[in-house]
Amino acid sequence: MKLLSFVHQGQAGYGVLLNGEVADAGACLTLPSPGFAARFPDLGAVLAGQALPALAADVAGRAGSLPLAGLSLLPVLPRPGKIFCVGLNYKSHVAEMKRPDADRPAIFARFADSLGAHGAPLAYPGRSERFDFEGELAVVIGRGGRDIAEADAWDHIAGYACFNDGTARDYQRHTHQWTPGKNFPGTGAFGPALVTADEVGDVNSLTLTTRLNGAVMQQASLADLIFPLPFIVAYLSQFTPLSPGDVIATGTPGGVGDKREPPLYMQPGDVVEVSITRVGTLHNVVGPRA
Amino acid sequence: MKLLSFVHQGQAGYGVLLNGEVADAGACLTLPSPGFAARFPDLGAVLAGQALPALAADVAGRAGSLPLAGLSLLPVLPRPGKIFCVGLNYKSHVAEMKRPDADRPAIFARFADSLGAHGAPLAYPGRSERFDFEGELAVVIGRGGRDIAEADAWDHIAGYACFNDGTARDYQRHTHQWTPGKNFPGTGAFGPALVTADEVGDVNSLTLTTRLNGAVMQQASLADLIFPLPFIVAYLSQFTPLSPGDVIATGTPGGVGDKREPPLYMQPGDVVEVSITRVGTLHNVVGPRA
Repeated sequence: MKLLSFVHQGQAGYGVLLNGEVADAGACLTLPSPGFAARFPDLGAVLAGQALPALAADVAGRAGSLPLAGLSLLPVLPRPGKIFCVGLNYKSHVAEMKRPDADRPAIFARFADSLGAHGAPLAYPGRSERFDFEGELAVVIGRGGRDIAEADAWDHIAGYACFNDGTARDYQRHTHQWTPGKNFPGTGAFGPALVTADEVGDVNSLTLTTRLNGAVMQQASLADLIFPLPFIVAYLSQFTPLSPGDVIATGTPGGVGDKREPPLYMQPGDVVEVSITRVGTLHNVVGPRA
Repeated sequence: MKLLSFVHQGQAGYGVLLNGEVADAGACLTLPSPGFAARFPDLGAVLAGQALPALAADVAGRAGSLPLAGLSLLPVLPRPGKIFCVGLNYKSHVAEMKRPDADRPAIFARFADSLGAHGAPLAYPGRSERFDFEGELAVVIGRGGRDIAEADAWDHIAGYACFNDGTARDYQRHTHQWTPGKNFPGTGAFGPALVTADEVGDVNSLTLTTRLNGAVMQQASLADLIFPLPFIVAYLSQFTPLSPGDVIATGTPGGVGDKREPPLYMQPGDVVEVSITRVGTLHNVVGPRA
């Protein structure tokens, strides 16, 4: 399933994308049974209620009822739980950042208001001179846990989405802690859809591509992750409980604008796209300098 | 005012500590007017509703109705907003950590479930061999804002509480990003009360003292902060909107266990107290190794 969160006629809702990703596919505002939406007011509640199978059963054989084109998408989970970001998880990015190898992933956090939706403007951080893209695969937790074994980690993943870990490089480097550069409001993006794990299949066969104004900036196989998804899930759950609706941005490959010669930072009006095989394409235009 | 969040007879509530900090002072479960608690179900809602003055007016002249001794306290704000932590904000701690001077504060985040209450066990992080204390002054935001000027920062501060930024040093140092060592559940503490800014007065005249089993481990004047509170509030609001109920742990002075000779880490059964003039004493016993 491909799950979307959106606003339709002023009302927040969610639904299932049917008939592929074409514009006339519909997302169903009152999906699926009467009462379902009352019990599960948003996608986060569906995940918390372990209700993805019920949702899947209910939509089987239905057609969509809302044209996708008429909807304003929200971030896949408008109210996510914890948002973890993994730094330095591709050798190509570790190399360009001139970082030594590490035996654990670097973990930092984003606040929910730092993320926008597919199709919404990527908010230019007015105080920054160095606004950079970072295309990533996001993992959405479906089943919570603590001290999860690597062998069990896949059972805790509900699905995947594209993620742009948009970064104000100057603020990221004010000190050794990256939080400020990663949390300007609306500078990241998360979407377009949550694609359930069964539909994505083998993560190692996925390719991630980031394009800026159509030009390929980053391209890598998810098989190139230094710390694979089970390792990350297990490691995070060592120090904090994971819950349905938590999000893990799994790191960006080499090719960021900041390390190009000359450096290439995003500017208002630029089009940035993060595409991942079978997961979709996250499309954003950089907004005006506030 | 001194504001407390607590559980009484199985019900979460909040109230105002009257008649000082003695055990027979009462916190009022149904404070203050009928309907007040319905409009403001927790202290965070009071802050969000700018209702501290109404609360103060209503309790003027009242006596407490619940003995403090019969209450289980909750973290001052059971559902805080963003929790920012400032690293390396006293010269004595920068020196012991052998860090260079910086012109911006190091900022990282804690998740809400990493904080416990005054009087509750400080949760020993079972996987860590190096559980350390960090006594700090916490600032609670009362009025939100973005790009707040230093000169206006005091108007955005509702009050203060004691904070123990309990840290698993080994996990903190797995990489250069400190998030894992700072987020084991219940390893920090936040309390006992939110003391409103008017009652605390001049922050520079405050002294912070951390004691382990009665022995002074850390002691410093808040006048020694490298980045004073207005600078921190202004800096944070440059990159993220501040909201009522956001919390800023303002950094710990020298004397942490990790840098003692020999190192001194907290063990199950240890008593750790963070005392700040006019703000109170946050008392916790380290819980069993899970």
